[in-house]
Parts: sequence; structure tokens; C-alpha cells
Amino acid sequence: METNATTETINQVMEEAWNAFHIYRNQSLKQRADLMRQIAIEIENLGDLLLQTAMAETNLPEARLRVERTRTIFQLTSYAAHCESGQWLDARIDTGDANRVPAKPDIRKMLVPLGPVVVFGASNFPFAYSTAGGDTACALAAGCPVIVKAHPAHPKTSALVASAIINAVASQGLPKGVFAHVHGASSAVGEALIKHPHTKAVGFTGSFAGGKQLFDWGNQRKEPIPVFAEMGSVNPVFLLPEKLKLSSIEIAQQLAASITLSVGQFCTNPGIMIGIKGEALDIFLNELSELIKKTIPAPMLHEGIHKNYLEKRAKALSGTLVSIKAVADIEAGSNEGIPTIATCSAKTFLENPLLQEEVFGPYSLLVCCDNADEMTMIANNLSGQLTATVMATENDVTLHSTLIEQVKNICGRFIFNGVPTGVEVCLSMQHGGPFPASTDSRFTSVGADGIRRFARPIAFQNWPDTLLPDELKQSNPLNIWRTVNNEPGRS
Amino acid sequence: METNATTETINQVMEEAWNAFHIYRNQSLKQRADLMRQIAIEIENLGDLLLQTAMAETNLPEARLRVERTRTIFQLTSYAAHCESGQWLDARIDTGDANRVPAKPDIRKMLVPLGPVVVFGASNFPFAYSTAGGDTACALAAGCPVIVKAHPAHPKTSALVASAIINAVASQGLPKGVFAHVHGASSAVGEALIKHPHTKAVGFTGSFAGGKQLFDWGNQRKEPIPVFAEMGSVNPVFLLPEKLKLSSIEIAQQLAASITLSVGQFCTNPGIMIGIKGEALDIFLNELSELIKKTIPAPMLHEGIHKNYLEKRAKALSGTLVSIKAVADIEAGSNEGIPTIATCSAKTFLENPLLQEEVFGPYSLLVCCDNADEMTMIANNLSGQLTATVMATENDVTLHSTLIEQVKNICGRFIFNGVPTGVEVCLSMQHGGPFPASTDSRFTSVGADGIRRFARPIAFQNWPDTLLPDELKQSNPLNIWRTVNNEPGRS
Repeated sequence: METNATTETINQVMEEAWNAFHIYRNQSLKQRADLMRQIAIEIENLGDLLLQTAMAETNLPEARLRVERTRTIFQLTSYAAHCESGQWLDARIDTGDANRVPAKPDIRKMLVPLGPVVVFGASNFPFAYSTAGGDTACALAAGCPVIVKAHPAHPKTSALVASAIINAVASQGLPKGVFAHVHGASSAVGEALIKHPHTKAVGFTGSFAGGKQLFDWGNQRKEPIPVFAEMGSVNPVFLLPEKLKLSSIEIAQQLAASITLSVGQFCTNPGIMIGIKGEALDIFLNELSELIKKTIPAPMLHEGIHKNYLEKRAKALSGTLVSIKAVADIEAGSNEGIPTIATCSAKTFLENPLLQEEVFGPYSLLVCCDNADEMTMIANNLSGQLTATVMATENDVTLHSTLIEQVKNICGRFIFNGVPTGVEVCLSMQHGGPFPASTDSRFTSVGADGIRRFARPIAFQNWPDTLLPDELKQSNPLNIWRTVNNEPGRS
Repeated sequence: METNATTETINQVMEEAWNAFHIYRNQSLKQRADLMRQIAIEIENLGDLLLQTAMAETNLPEARLRVERTRTIFQLTSYAAHCESGQWLDARIDTGDANRVPAKPDIRKMLVPLGPVVVFGASNFPFAYSTAGGDTACALAAGCPVIVKAHPAHPKTSALVASAIINAVASQGLPKGVFAHVHGASSAVGEALIKHPHTKAVGFTGSFAGGKQLFDWGNQRKEPIPVFAEMGSVNPVFLLPEKLKLSSIEIAQQLAASITLSVGQFCTNPGIMIGIKGEALDIFLNELSELIKKTIPAPMLHEGIHKNYLEKRAKALSGTLVSIKAVADIEAGSNEGIPTIATCSAKTFLENPLLQEEVFGPYSLLVCCDNADEMTMIANNLSGQLTATVMATENDVTLHSTLIEQVKNICGRFIFNGVPTGVEVCLSMQHGGPFPASTDSRFTSVGADGIRRFARPIAFQNWPDTLLPDELKQSNPLNIWRTVNNEPGRS
């Protein structure tokens, strides 16, 4: 068991981060990108030891962890490339005009880092959303030192990855305060980190209860700070009638795989499906049920997640008029998640807000509506979501435009004939949605746009060219995209 | 005296805004821009009546109000142009690849509106930061209905401008819920508006106490919402030694004008000046004092502001070892602000946090340092600022790089050899700084980038081209700037 960081340690770590900030924020985009690429190399250098350590701590299979390691390295290197491109700086220049009355000043704006960022990793992504995950990569790209609080479910994995980052920081000749790693199974450690005056932003991926607590702590400070918490979702899937009739079997197969992928332990797991009663829905449900029955239960990430799954599942199933439609034929062993499909009517769903809560694991609820109006009522009733999916023909979309518009209004990512699991790492990705999916729907935690969470604009007024940062100099020495007198370009 | 909006009225207004949102958010960029341009026309059509009403309510002179009206109209029309350009949508496209394993989805992202925005105007800008001011223009551009709570210091002006907006909404054939205007001298009205579930964001310009209260209400909701509050600043001006020696008289003239402009009633008023003791500072202070003595006191915006000025000024002057250096020779009449310069040592300033508080009015404090190190200590000690200014030669900047970096780190706009008053309306403007200057330093309330406060990204995954919004269609029918496969352009 790792020791909780003491107040003394936290104060020291934050002091070092603050001092390092004043050096690191002036590192060029290339220097920041070099650090990120070096971290990727150091993580690769950890080799099989890293995989074995994570396997032992998380119950995740090796193949999955290999893919996640590749993803983590891709995040670091692709965000590094984006960092270096300077696009994210939103550089804007309005040139002055001395002849105007009053004289028009020369103003040039770009993003600068906020300061030390505290990162809370996720238990379900020991690499990609943990120690050297998306939040850390974004904060380092933005020019912010990072303090990671290790997830207590995989402290050894976290410490190994931290050692890779620490090596990279040293090999780039940067002050050690650029990165720190602390342990803290107790919530007091998280609270102390967030409430420390040198902390300027927070990144978090995890449960609603956890994320909301950090958000509140961040806002209750004397100097409130932005807390970006990605808190999961039920990721509704709307089954539109024409499409369902055409492809009920195929959709059932897609969803069965998505619901049970990684024992359902994804924040994009499709937790609610909504369809209209009838023959097509029956065929769909039967196929889905058969596939779920055949699913082999597998161990969950850790005891806490498993206990939570059992409790949340039992709570959902205890709802009046909610019935189990299918569970895995093979009995679940200790710590294993039971693949489960439940059903209820639209009326039942609308009357019981508890059924909207995420059941983190291989569970999904099919809401059976009497008609399309009930589907729209459900869409109107749903809270904010990371993703929403429609299974539809183009004709379905045209015929149900009100429903489609409503669904669009509650989600961060809107999927057409696909499944919500699988979050592509690219600039166009949005991972974050209206509350309670995340604490600020205006930002994303996946994709290089996530860098902007940790940066703020500063406008330089009437500075001589020689004293401006390279990003804003008249000659554009870094050759970055800038908007000059309202026109984007590289000139 | 206007009647406070009742709970019933507020509920009705918010219901209408919510219904209008679902229509207005689907208006094209051009339609939104047309509305904004029509509002500008309707405001112009109000003619002299608007100026006279504002003069009677605010004590601001006609010339100033004419300039402010022009600025307001420029905001509406220039933000309309930016809205129509689509640049602010941050459209990003990553095209799919069916051959990749697993298949790479097609993902396309753009900003969409948050929902109804409640706007609280400023008393010191009855046009430009009030009813049809920057926040309203940004929200309408983003696609959000707006509910303005009239400032109780200029309710008739606000109602007149509201009538112009209401006319414009009607003439564009939009539902009336796109804009609403309510009165509320009581804070209960503001609280009810912010806590209404249909409210999705808030814009505010005013005092720290007011803005912080709205921010807290927004965060305490079951569904927290972003509250962008611009809460003023002391806008420190650092007088570097070589420059001060060269231009002490000129700088004194610039600052005297800036401190007393509009009776000091600007959030960018230079409230603190920092210099190093010596002959140059003496010459500067003498000149500044002479100019302040000659300033003719003028009426402040309203009784509340005047009372507040007297109180805050008295509180600052009551500090141990703070002394008055100059006040206007002509005695101030009732409701008039007394132009005042006070001085203190760096030690006194550092020991008394009260001296950092904004004294809203024609007041400024000169902090006299023993040396450059004390100047840097003051910079380290200052909280977040809308602006910071350095009066410096290039040599000064090179010699005092630590000070310059520290100042840069606490401000939203960084001015070189100028004055902070005068906020240019352009894309490169940043008006918002680290807390407590504003509640979220990542956004601006002046310039078209302010639109982004009220919009969030949505990613469309694998949608057929015909069903995508025009902004994201493959052929780019709106000819907007988009980043396609990481490369910005218009293709």
C-alpha cells in the first residue's frame, strides 16, 4: 500500500511546480513537443514490465493493454505535433493605425499556460487516461507543469509511468518540478492538491461523484480554478423504425459487442437503448439477448468497481416494472461483471430518474416505446451525454427531425449507425458533453483541442516587434497559422 | 421605479426562451448576422431620444454617449460579420478510412449554442456593455436566445434599447422568445434567472461582489452553468527607470488623463502605479499631482457608485502610511468624484491587501519602491488583472525580464507605453484576466472571440454528407475556414 502524500510533501511539490512553471512556460513549442516525444520513448522503453504491472493491477488483458499503450504514445506524439504547429494558440493580430482618431493600437493575442495542473487519472485506462494520459499530454503542451495523483487502483503502474516522465524531464534538462507524482488513496490528498494556491487547473476522468466533488472544491477556493471533469454517461442509442426493420440483427450484434467490450468499463458504454415496440424490436431484442447470454463473464478492474457495478445494477433492476431480459449463461465468478440486458416501458423510464444513472459495467437497458412521440419525450428528458447514437436510415432522420434535433442538443458526440465505444484520437473529436457528462461542455478531454483547457489568451498592445514572442512577430518566424486583420493564413 | 419581475414572469420568459432556442439555434449564420445588423439599425432609429434618456439616467455627457452608441453598433455589425465568416465555429474535419483496422470513422466538429443566456449589463456602459452590448451580441451570434436583466441605474435606457431588439426580432420573423427584457432592482430577480433550469450561461460586467455572487449561484445549481463575469481590476502600471527618466512629464500627462477619463469609471482605470524612488519619480509625481489638482470634478454615474467611491477611497486612505498627494483644487459637489492621487511605500503596499482593491472612480495610488526588486515583489503579490502596463524602453524590458514575465503572468492584456483605458473592439482583444479580474481567464468579453463563451463543440461521427450541417459538408458550401485532416484552409 502506497503512503498518502503528507501536507508537507504536497506543499513542497506545489512549490516546485510553481517555480518550474516560470521556466517551463517560456519553453518554445518545439521544446515542449520534444519533451512529449521523449516521454513516449521512455514509456516504450519500460517494455513488458509496464504491461505486466498493469495486468496485475487492473485485470485488463495484455492485448488490450498493448493497444492502450500504443494509443497513449500516439496521444503524446500527435498532441506534440499539434503543439508544435501552433494552431491551438489562436494567434490573432490586428495591426495598428496611427492615422485613425483616436489612434488604433497594434494588438496581438495568443494563448499562454494557466499554471500547474493537477491530473486525476481514470481506473479504466491505466495508460491513456492516467499518469501520461490525455490530460497530462495536453497540460504539458499548453506549457503547464503537471502533478499527477496516482489512481489508487493501479499505483505501481502509475509510478512506473511517472518514472518515465521524470526521466524525460531530466533528459530534456528541465527542472524536476515540471512533473510530480503523488499517491493518495485518501480523498484528503486530492482536496489538498486542488485547494493549493499554486494549482491553476484540474483534469479528471472518472465517476460523477468524484468529478463533482473536485469541481466543487475548485469553485470554492478563494481563487476559483477550472476543473475539467469527464464524468461518464449512459450514451443513449436511438433505434429508428425503418433502420431497425432493415438491420435488427446487425444492430443487435454491434450493440452486444459494444455493451460487453472490456466488461462494459468504458464511459462511452451504450447504457440505454430506445426503440419502438413491434416485430423489429422483438427480433433485435431476441438476438441481443442470445448474444449476451453467450458472453463469458470476465473480471472487472478492481473490487471497488465490481462492488459498485453490483450495487448500481441491483438498484436499477429494483425499479418497478424493470425486468431482466438476459444475463450471461455462465455464472459470474468473484469480481466478474455479469453481462445483463434489462427492459422497461417509456412510461417507467420517464417516471424513474434513477434509470438514467450510469451502471458502470456490461449492463444496458432497452426502453420500449409505444410510438415515436415517446422516443422524443425520452430524448427531452435525458440529461447531458458524452455521446448519443442514432441507428437510422436517411429517411428516418427526415421523418424524425424533432427527435434528432433534441438528441443533438444533449450530446458532445453524435454517432450515425455506429457504436459509441471507440473514441478516435483526432482533432475533430469531442469528448465532453453537457453536464453531467462533463463539468464544462465547451472543452474536450480527447483530441489536441484539449490543450485549450489549460491555456488562456493574452493580448499584447503596442509592443515593439523585437520584444514580442516569436509566435506574434510580424515576420511569423515559426510559420504558424494566424488570423491577421480577420483573415486566417500563414503570411 | 420599475417593478421587479415576478417568479411567474421569469418562468414564462424562460419557457419562451427555451422554445425559441430550438428554432433560433438552427438559423443560419447569415440569419443570425441579419438579426444583429437589424438590431444595429433599430438602435440608430431610436435617435436622440436614446441619448437624452441615457444622459438623464447616467450623468454621462452626450459626446461620450454618442461615441458609445457608435461602438455598440460597431460591436453588433462586426460580430455579425465574424459570425457569418464561420471562423469562430472551429470547424474540424477528420476524414474516415475504411481500410484501417479498426476502420477509422469520419468525424466533423463545430460549435453549437449552449442555450438561453442571461445578461447582466454594466452601469458604466449603458449601451456597449448593457442591453444590446457585447454579451448580447456574442450570445445572439452563437445562436442563443438572450434574457437581459436591466441595470437598475438606467432602466429606461435599457427598455428603449430592448424595444429596438424586440422590433428587430419581430421584423426578422423570429419567435419573440429570442430576446426578453426584465427589470429587477432586487437581487432575487437575478438569482431566479440564474437558477432557472432553462438558463444555460450568464454574462456579467460589474463589481467583484456582484460577479462573484452570480458565479457562485451558477455553480451551485444542480446543473452548473458557465458564468462569465468581468469584475474589474486595478490595472497596475509599472514605471521602469530608464523610460521614466526619459519621459516623466509625458507619462504623467498620459496617466492623469487616463485616471480621470469619464470620472475614472472604467474597469480598465489605472488604479495602481509602481515606480522606483528618485528624481524621475519625483518629477513624474509632481506633474501628475498638478494635473490632478486642475481636474474639474464631475458627477458620477449614480448615487450608489458615488457612495461606493467615497467609501472605498476613505478605506484605502485610512491605511497606515498611505498619504494623499493630490486632490482636485475645486471642491467636489454632491455626487461628484474627487480626483485623487495617493502614495505609499512598497512595504506598506505589500503589508496591506486592502490597497489592492479597486477604488472605482478617479483615484490612483503610486507605490514608491526602494529598488527594482521591490517592484518585482509587488508584481508577484498582485492578483489577476484585466490589464497591466509597462512604461519602458526596450533596454528596461531586457534588464527587468523577471519583472516583465511576472506581470505578463497576471494579466489578460499587456500594454507597452500606453494607458489601459480604451478597449479596442477587434478579434485580437482580450478583455478578461486571471481571477479576480474575471471568473474564467480563458474567455474574453470584448471582441468576436467572446462568442465562444456561449457555444460548445459537437462532433458528428459517420453522418452522411446530406444530413450534415452546411458548415461541415464535404463541398464546404459556406466557404468557411475549416481544419481538414489537421490542415487549415477553405478547401
